[in-house]
Amino acid sequence: MVAISPNARVRRSPYDQATRAAGVQSFEIYNRMLMPTSYGDPVAEYWRLIEGVALWDVACERQVQITGPDAATLAQILAPRDLARCPVGQGRYVALCDHRGVLINDPVLSKLAPDRFWLSIADADIWLWARAIAAERDLDVVIEEPDVSPLAVQGPKAEAVVASLFGDWVRELGRFAFRAATLDDIPLVVARSGWSKQGGFELYLLDSRKATALWQLVMEAGRPFDIGPGSPNDVERIESGLLAFGCDTDARTNPFEVRLGRFVDLDLPDDTIGIEALRRIAAVGPVRQQLGVMLAEEAPRERAVGRFAVLAGGERIGTTTELVWSHRLRRTIGLALVDIGATPGSAVEVRLAAGIFAGTLRGLPFL
Amino acid sequence: MVAISPNARVRRSPYDQATRAAGVQSFEIYNRMLMPTSYGDPVAEYWRLIEGVALWDVACERQVQITGPDAATLAQILAPRDLARCPVGQGRYVALCDHRGVLINDPVLSKLAPDRFWLSIADADIWLWARAIAAERDLDVVIEEPDVSPLAVQGPKAEAVVASLFGDWVRELGRFAFRAATLDDIPLVVARSGWSKQGGFELYLLDSRKATALWQLVMEAGRPFDIGPGSPNDVERIESGLLAFGCDTDARTNPFEVRLGRFVDLDLPDDTIGIEALRRIAAVGPVRQQLGVMLAEEAPRERAVGRFAVLAGGERIGTTTELVWSHRLRRTIGLALVDIGATPGSAVEVRLAAGIFAGTLRGLPFL
Repeated sequence: MVAISPNARVRRSPYDQATRAAGVQSFEIYNRMLMPTSYGDPVAEYWRLIEGVALWDVACERQVQITGPDAATLAQILAPRDLARCPVGQGRYVALCDHRGVLINDPVLSKLAPDRFWLSIADADIWLWARAIAAERDLDVVIEEPDVSPLAVQGPKAEAVVASLFGDWVRELGRFAFRAATLDDIPLVVARSGWSKQGGFELYLLDSRKATALWQLVMEAGRPFDIGPGSPNDVERIESGLLAFGCDTDARTNPFEVRLGRFVDLDLPDDTIGIEALRRIAAVGPVRQQLGVMLAEEAPRERAVGRFAVLAGGERIGTTTELVWSHRLRRTIGLALVDIGATPGSAVEVRLAAGIFAGTLRGLPFL
Repeated sequence: MVAISPNARVRRSPYDQATRAAGVQSFEIYNRMLMPTSYGDPVAEYWRLIEGVALWDVACERQVQITGPDAATLAQILAPRDLARCPVGQGRYVALCDHRGVLINDPVLSKLAPDRFWLSIADADIWLWARAIAAERDLDVVIEEPDVSPLAVQGPKAEAVVASLFGDWVRELGRFAFRAATLDDIPLVVARSGWSKQGGFELYLLDSRKATALWQLVMEAGRPFDIGPGSPNDVERIESGLLAFGCDTDARTNPFEVRLGRFVDLDLPDDTIGIEALRRIAAVGPVRQQLGVMLAEEAPRERAVGRFAVLAGGERIGTTTELVWSHRLRRTIGLALVDIGATPGSAVEVRLAAGIFAGTLRGLPFL
């Protein structure tokens, strides 16, 4: 843990009062907002996500809102994925790239109206990017950060909790589909979404003054299902092979390297940012790939964030991005960016601070 | 203090080993890098800056490097300040704005060569901004984050320390002027710069592997001057009226509101980003202004980061951005964004968590 001194650049979440009451112990800073990362018992929090239902303050998942006559045009220029058939009420996972085809974010893009979109972004100042492109192309849009504070309900019992609050219609929502709703007088948007593979919803609160009330209502509804507080879970996300932008990516990562090629439509018009570069990269093929790495049984339980060398036959073939102890696999596992020639199943060594450990490359997801 | 869990998005500084050995206690996260904020005795650290010399790890002050045939063109498009007469070896403080004239950063722009510039940025992803503009205008530049890690030597005795390391030529450097140098075999750039008004230099280390060696050499040279570790100092910067981008500014701040109008040249060509908006704002005049606020003698010692209401005659006229206890003025002082009609000397009240306190608006700087 690192002690961070308070400063005016870092915001507290609207759910701050609620998460403190729930015993939050540590945070990350994400989009300049504090995001809870633990309530003091990481193992219990993991199993709650895997077997039950957890409530996550992910208000730091800020929205880049694009509104105006040219909003749809801008959305399609920014995202190298065909949005033509995306209906209102539906989101799409998109790989935002710069003009060189370098991945700059991987938001869910939600179409709230024909002239209104949200990019639910990973940690980066995409407002600057979107405003630069819109102004340079003379598009008639307004780009803002609206008062939207997501609260995630995640885990196999999440649907039962959310259905008990809103009704059975939520069971029919497909992945990234959403609908506006109210709970008592709290305005929100209910989406089938969330950064886990355990199933769940995100409640996009539209009035931050009602954050504590929303938290309490969900906790109350979840009591029969033994709901508890949690947070985006590194162990689960690595087991599930979910990308963490900024952790698993670096300053030159393209979507094909990190398994996002299926979200790229290369036949989009040439005015789509990065599309020409992406076509070139796709034609040649990427030089790196994201794979899993599993350390040998005798390796210690290890959490290692950041870049550690992955070696094959003594040669460096890439780096890990994050290693964790998997409670289900009972092994230290992680993600790595390695040379494109490396194959799942092959033996590697990982050079950690604690020593060099034998391991095996794995396809993703692990589970 | 807030406990932050380690994650791969946040880098340690190259000076990490040195600052830990020096007893660092707390940090901020700035440009996704840990920046030390205290070594355990903030009062002593303050007086060391005011009366002696302090060494600051400000590696988090990252550089947006622009190189290539169109580098000078892009620099001038990005910065609404006339750079035509800026020589190589000189920096300029610039107010980067978006197309609406909203301040998006306040870096020092250093001209290293006719085709090579650094923007030494405050906390924001200006790489995204610069890349978007460069690509949309089809400029032939490369925009990167180079291996540059500033170390600041600040305080009235800084010049003596830096001169003892590099020679008396450093005494001749004007504000924001710089020169390449080596110390033993450590490559760096020596600049008259730094985020205090106590005088000093920044050593832009060009090889992060040599960070510990550089720190030790400066500490050694500073021993006769009783040098010690420190960090950018909120108390001193508020006394001195230095702007903290992202703290004192919000999503609609323009340069004229925060005393940066003198760095804006309104007669620049129309292709300068934001210049048309800035001309309009200048013609009408800004609606807000940054002033100091000094609480009455009986108010408690207070550090308050974030927005607290400033009231005049019971009416809200703006908000504070940061309040601190001034060791020299022996009063709680701070910065505020208030209505343009407010005048220094007038009585106000500040609504803090601890209560409502009487105070007076002040011109800046305090000292």
